[in-house]
Amino acid sequence: MLGARCLLQALRSCSSAPCARPRAPAALSVRDALRARGASGERVKVQGWIRSARSQKEVLFLHVNDGSSLESLQVVADSSFDSRELAFGSSVEAQGQLVKSPSRGQNVELKAEKIEVIGNCDAKAFPIKYKERHPLEYLRQYPHLRCRTNALASILRVRSEATAAVHSFFKQLGQHLHHPLALDSGFVHIHTPVITSNDCEGAGELFQVEPSSKTKVPKENFFNVPAFLTVSGQLHLEVMSGGNSTLIEMKEVVKDLNWLGIRAFTRVFTIGPTFRAENSQSRRHLAEFYMVEAEISFVESLQDLMQVMEGLFKSTTMMVLSNCPKDVELCHKFIAPGHKDRLEHMLKNNFLTISYTEAVEILKQASENFTFTPEWGVDLQTEHEKYLVKHCGNIPVFVINYPLALKPFYMRDNEDGPHHTVAAVDLLVPGVGELIGGSLREERYHFLEQRLARSGLTEAYQ
Amino acid sequence: MLGARCLLQALRSCSSAPCARPRAPAALSVRDALRARGASGERVKVQGWIRSARSQKEVLFLHVNDGSSLESLQVVADSSFDSRELAFGSSVEAQGQLVKSPSRGQNVELKAEKIEVIGNCDAKAFPIKYKERHPLEYLRQYPHLRCRTNALASILRVRSEATAAVHSFFKQLGQHLHHPLALDSGFVHIHTPVITSNDCEGAGELFQVEPSSKTKVPKENFFNVPAFLTVSGQLHLEVMSGGNSTLIEMKEVVKDLNWLGIRAFTRVFTIGPTFRAENSQSRRHLAEFYMVEAEISFVESLQDLMQVMEGLFKSTTMMVLSNCPKDVELCHKFIAPGHKDRLEHMLKNNFLTISYTEAVEILKQASENFTFTPEWGVDLQTEHEKYLVKHCGNIPVFVINYPLALKPFYMRDNEDGPHHTVAAVDLLVPGVGELIGGSLREERYHFLEQRLARSGLTEAYQ
Repeated sequence: MLGARCLLQALRSCSSAPCARPRAPAALSVRDALRARGASGERVKVQGWIRSARSQKEVLFLHVNDGSSLESLQVVADSSFDSRELAFGSSVEAQGQLVKSPSRGQNVELKAEKIEVIGNCDAKAFPIKYKERHPLEYLRQYPHLRCRTNALASILRVRSEATAAVHSFFKQLGQHLHHPLALDSGFVHIHTPVITSNDCEGAGELFQVEPSSKTKVPKENFFNVPAFLTVSGQLHLEVMSGGNSTLIEMKEVVKDLNWLGIRAFTRVFTIGPTFRAENSQSRRHLAEFYMVEAEISFVESLQDLMQVMEGLFKSTTMMVLSNCPKDVELCHKFIAPGHKDRLEHMLKNNFLTISYTEAVEILKQASENFTFTPEWGVDLQTEHEKYLVKHCGNIPVFVINYPLALKPFYMRDNEDGPHHTVAAVDLLVPGVGELIGGSLREERYHFLEQRLARSGLTEAYQ
Repeated sequence: MLGARCLLQALRSCSSAPCARPRAPAALSVRDALRARGASGERVKVQGWIRSARSQKEVLFLHVNDGSSLESLQVVADSSFDSRELAFGSSVEAQGQLVKSPSRGQNVELKAEKIEVIGNCDAKAFPIKYKERHPLEYLRQYPHLRCRTNALASILRVRSEATAAVHSFFKQLGQHLHHPLALDSGFVHIHTPVITSNDCEGAGELFQVEPSSKTKVPKENFFNVPAFLTVSGQLHLEVMSGGNSTLIEMKEVVKDLNWLGIRAFTRVFTIGPTFRAENSQSRRHLAEFYMVEAEISFVESLQDLMQVMEGLFKSTTMMVLSNCPKDVELCHKFIAPGHKDRLEHMLKNNFLTISYTEAVEILKQASENFTFTPEWGVDLQTEHEKYLVKHCGNIPVFVINYPLALKPFYMRDNEDGPHHTVAAVDLLVPGVGELIGGSLREERYHFLEQRLARSGLTEAYQ
């Protein structure tokens, strides 16, 4: 890895000018300490927060957690170290030897020779209590402390791994999907703007942005035009990608512009914040969320696109399972029972593909009582999506070729009939419903003209 | 690499259900085609946009660019392929054999057997002209087309590489800076919120966020409190990191809260959008920009922090130089003359460290006429920073230990005298001035209490 080699050189050549305080020996994370196979007395220093402290005869047992893993490291010390400050919540630095643990439940423990309290904690005033499971509603009041709980720290570790996995998926894609001479995927990562003047076809769920009242500049002049928070980076990715491009995104967004604009890159992606001013407190509506979006030029079939979608889902899931096994287990046991088994079931199987028309047939033949009656030409509801996934054996399902009338004008006309469809695809997954959406773009100018005219949009897209 | 292996499995197990159109053979990026050493007739397909077309006797020469590199691939075809559509700006797909090029200036070229025009371009109406260098002011009018120019495409490629380099720096850091048993850096990547209720000590350069007028919900209820766009993720990183933490950031931000809040992770970083409602059109003031921020717990000296800062600068720079050599050369030649030499000079040398007090002495002894007279206790101006860098031989310089009175209350008191300073550090680099700032945090409760009282902030931070 070039990166690693360069870094090593960089760090070797670091400045050695004198500083305020002397350098301390290197510390080891709790995660790495726990991973050390066959620990045999290596000298280490561990820093973190005390999760539990217990005195037993002549011995003091501390569990120290530093956020690097769900599990804590057991620190064993002579009872002479015992002090009132060594209590739940205090931050400590412990030095000693990493040895095999005689106790059950852990491979290694730290035989401490030195324990220093860096900051102590008033357990009475501290809103998070030892061994208690606090409801999320309670933790909402303490945004600065809630990441000390197992559940929220786990979510942040998983999110960090998933973000890294998405980056590395797009970086490595080319090695497998493409020509043997390909050295990388050719994907360019783009930071699409957050502040935008595009009001997204008047969808009416935007946040507007203005200098705050404290700012002295006249409001009406700041951006010259009304400015909003982006609802999607799609537009910006599209103008950078080109040809017959396709979009993969985590949420469906109906927006487009400059469709035939000549573009610059064949493959671009972004992981960016997006915003919706929807006044809803459900699990599916957030004011601010992150979305992965990609545009690929010169794609010729939905099959190519579905390969990328399946690869993205599987490689991200596998990275999380392999790098955060304990966090996934926590979720599996306490938050979403059976979650890990369901994920492994999805990874082991090929995803299925059905057409929208087949999907509607399946739903019509279902014995289930749906709130919304399934009918050709009408959007699938979440209840329909969940039924389809269950019907297919709890494996993710691609639904392809949606009715032309349901989809925006820029999706590619399949020129079929009598059920007229476009080359759009949604990936439905167990427990969620639609997770990723995408489509082939209409690249034929006269098709676009006709559909714009039919939708009364010709002028808007002049 | 686990990621790559998983991905391969994922892609192998992809669905093979029938789709609208048949799969095409794999394409190769222009970048990979150009990198192919000893090309000897490999069959490839390349897709991109025509940068130039030229007929010579019986032969047609096209230069095709797909955004993967600054350079275009020369496509050589029989003149029978010639058509009016094969002109500047059109998107094409060319298939044929990759062979050694007899021409100067390139190693390989594509001997085309098939050329298909995917989308043609009306060169007369197209605002970007062949072989012309368009000024940036002109290109501003065409946000959807400007990335087709060499300069802007280069910037986006460099930015994509730099972003990846920052991610991989924080991922790999631990392997070199830490204990031999360490397997990774332990850094957790955090997406800090963009919408925030924190108004940042009333700095008065914020954007306010409200549902747009189209939204039907009553404005005053949306977030319960006034909401702004973030000026820094520092606050959120701080509450997640802990102990004696330090911040590295690309711009100095004066903001803090909940200083002694007990935290959850020892190392966190973010690359996030930040916003300033400053009404200025200079190169140094943007309404929206990205900032790298990191918080590290249990840091004991500025030296540790400076190692991370120097490592981040050098490894990011080396990755860009090594992965985008042609883009850097373009910048070196046309945009910032001599830029590459300056960067290599910085990489070869150890960064220097001087104290703020030494810096003021150097400035006082300078023969230069400064607009602002240098004086102990007064902030360094950009003119001062640039002089210091030049004085130190155009090598990046750490300036450490700033006057206590200049810095926020949370920076660690050095308890020195008569010039009372805090453990803060700025990295000054040639051509820019301050690039990265950081400090040790004051972890001693009574010091914080005293300084809050002296600043009249006790109540605000209750």
